[in-house]
Amino acid sequence: MQKIESPAAFIGKDDNNLISFGSGQPDLPPPEAVYKILPTYRNFKYGLIKGQENLRQALAAQYQNAKADNFVITNGASEALDLTLRALYQPGAKVLLPKPYYYSYPFNVRLAGMEPVFYELVDGKIDFEQFKKEILGCQAVLINSPGNPTGTVQDLAVLKKIEKLGQKLNIYIISDEVYKDLIYERENYLMEGKKVLTLNSFSKTYAMCGFRVGYVYAREKELIDKIVEMKTHTSMNTNILGQEMAYEATKVPRSYIDSQTKIWKERRDLIYNGLWELGLEVWKPEGAFYVFPKMKNPGKVVSDLYFKYHVITYDGTWFGDEQRVRFSYALDAEKIKEGLRRLGEYLKKEYREN
Amino acid sequence: MQKIESPAAFIGKDDNNLISFGSGQPDLPPPEAVYKILPTYRNFKYGLIKGQENLRQALAAQYQNAKADNFVITNGASEALDLTLRALYQPGAKVLLPKPYYYSYPFNVRLAGMEPVFYELVDGKIDFEQFKKEILGCQAVLINSPGNPTGTVQDLAVLKKIEKLGQKLNIYIISDEVYKDLIYERENYLMEGKKVLTLNSFSKTYAMCGFRVGYVYAREKELIDKIVEMKTHTSMNTNILGQEMAYEATKVPRSYIDSQTKIWKERRDLIYNGLWELGLEVWKPEGAFYVFPKMKNPGKVVSDLYFKYHVITYDGTWFGDEQRVRFSYALDAEKIKEGLRRLGEYLKKEYREN
Repeated sequence: MQKIESPAAFIGKDDNNLISFGSGQPDLPPPEAVYKILPTYRNFKYGLIKGQENLRQALAAQYQNAKADNFVITNGASEALDLTLRALYQPGAKVLLPKPYYYSYPFNVRLAGMEPVFYELVDGKIDFEQFKKEILGCQAVLINSPGNPTGTVQDLAVLKKIEKLGQKLNIYIISDEVYKDLIYERENYLMEGKKVLTLNSFSKTYAMCGFRVGYVYAREKELIDKIVEMKTHTSMNTNILGQEMAYEATKVPRSYIDSQTKIWKERRDLIYNGLWELGLEVWKPEGAFYVFPKMKNPGKVVSDLYFKYHVITYDGTWFGDEQRVRFSYALDAEKIKEGLRRLGEYLKKEYREN
Repeated sequence: MQKIESPAAFIGKDDNNLISFGSGQPDLPPPEAVYKILPTYRNFKYGLIKGQENLRQALAAQYQNAKADNFVITNGASEALDLTLRALYQPGAKVLLPKPYYYSYPFNVRLAGMEPVFYELVDGKIDFEQFKKEILGCQAVLINSPGNPTGTVQDLAVLKKIEKLGQKLNIYIISDEVYKDLIYERENYLMEGKKVLTLNSFSKTYAMCGFRVGYVYAREKELIDKIVEMKTHTSMNTNILGQEMAYEATKVPRSYIDSQTKIWKERRDLIYNGLWELGLEVWKPEGAFYVFPKMKNPGKVVSDLYFKYHVITYDGTWFGDEQRVRFSYALDAEKIKEGLRRLGEYLKKEYREN
């Protein structure tokens, strides 16, 4: 078996015969409005390190009591997380992460010089009693709802209890909300509170992955200043044209997002039902565009599916779960059906022998 | 006196009455070719973390024996430096920097968990005998030629000796060559060798500062892999449209760069002669677009010039030199003249009282 070590092996791969349940890359294009400014665009100078004023103002309008100065525009949510962790760095500090986790989290925590520790999700959900114990002594905790790779949305009551706990214990809450607009089963909830650091991006809601525009929203001025100071030396302003395109996206009517969500939901139903029919154990995703069925020996499954069936899937092990495989359903219905067909073939022919 | 703490205070400031000798931001626009692709551009997906193939291939053609796989495209040279330092991190390691230095260097070394140490430039030039001693025990050394804030270009013979020394001592040489195309007095030289890590960007040569496209060129595959792995988690691909614009820039004929250099040289002569005529002690810049005259109490000079004369200059202290002020001449001749006039007024009226 040729082992596939990480998702990096797949990024940017694309060919017609390949069905990719891999990357969290929407296949539907961004709203046309984001391209409309391009023909006459002629700026070229450095922008403000914290990001363009118009974009930060538009974002502030999306959150309660927020001001433009609470935001730093970053190279995607990835840089938002990296800078946030570097800003929170303390020697010997621990950062509490969900498990399973988005595969970058533990890497980023270590790269920022801190130690990742974990709270176990139960079928993708936070067990608050357990969480309460794990959080003690941590510098920060990361919440990711809707979650990657789980596709779950955390209970509103639990999120509110976590806000209070962070406040009481003086522990930062990093809330990664990049899937905030992709929710199928319940109301959206944006975490609030003085100790909350919200991460977000234009990649998922507006399919602008390649343009790398994200942001961090922090309530404490001191943290914003620290992040801006670091960004001055580590990347300077985020691509000015990307920011202008993102600003255009903020003006797109809500109906655009709703129409996208409708499509995601149909695909969610298609793949969720399909996996059940193939006999796999899986919970119903509530948000994002991932489904996370239980499978034996996921490393072999991922390798077999890729090399023999031209289907990309992600090994749960990369996300801290050795019993599951992640399927992204960010691809069109016909491809999902074909992918399910190939998966079915694999399950019938080879999987049982695992 | 209202003290100005760092260049960050000035970034993005712009008004008609302000003469800015501050930021290293070319005032002349990028070649029109970089905008030509915009009207029909419709891509949006994640790109390869290491950067688009076409751009990396075009860059490889600019260096001897280089291959596309030796390059990682980054969010400007800033991210190239940040990732390079993080990749070279060893506990307790020292990185040898020039002094005076580009103001980000010591910050970046510390942020990457290492200790900055310094080799003193003599009138902007490397004293090789001194350098030879300082380099011992360092993990890496940084060379910046043409240099910021000095405007000097290091001797070819010295650069070649440094290449050999790095090789012999097994010490990495980080060569920041962002001003490689802006040289007025001598031939350009791109550092070579197995231990050399070259940083560069499209910001200065093509005036594309705001688009943030830079790169690191490393000869060791292991280092490239490490940098790509980090970038996968800390920012992912560099803005795909910025990369495509940079690729268009690589196709612009050499005559474009030559015509720009001619303009920079005229401005260099204008400001260099002007400063001499005002009685300031200054060496003749050989490259980049900075001039670095000696001035008493530079903190006060920078503050006075800004608040009373609406002239932005940068305090030499920010670059590790407490006896000089940096003037960028990346602005048009008329503005340079007006700035010199205001400076003359200041020198006559107030400076002597310092």
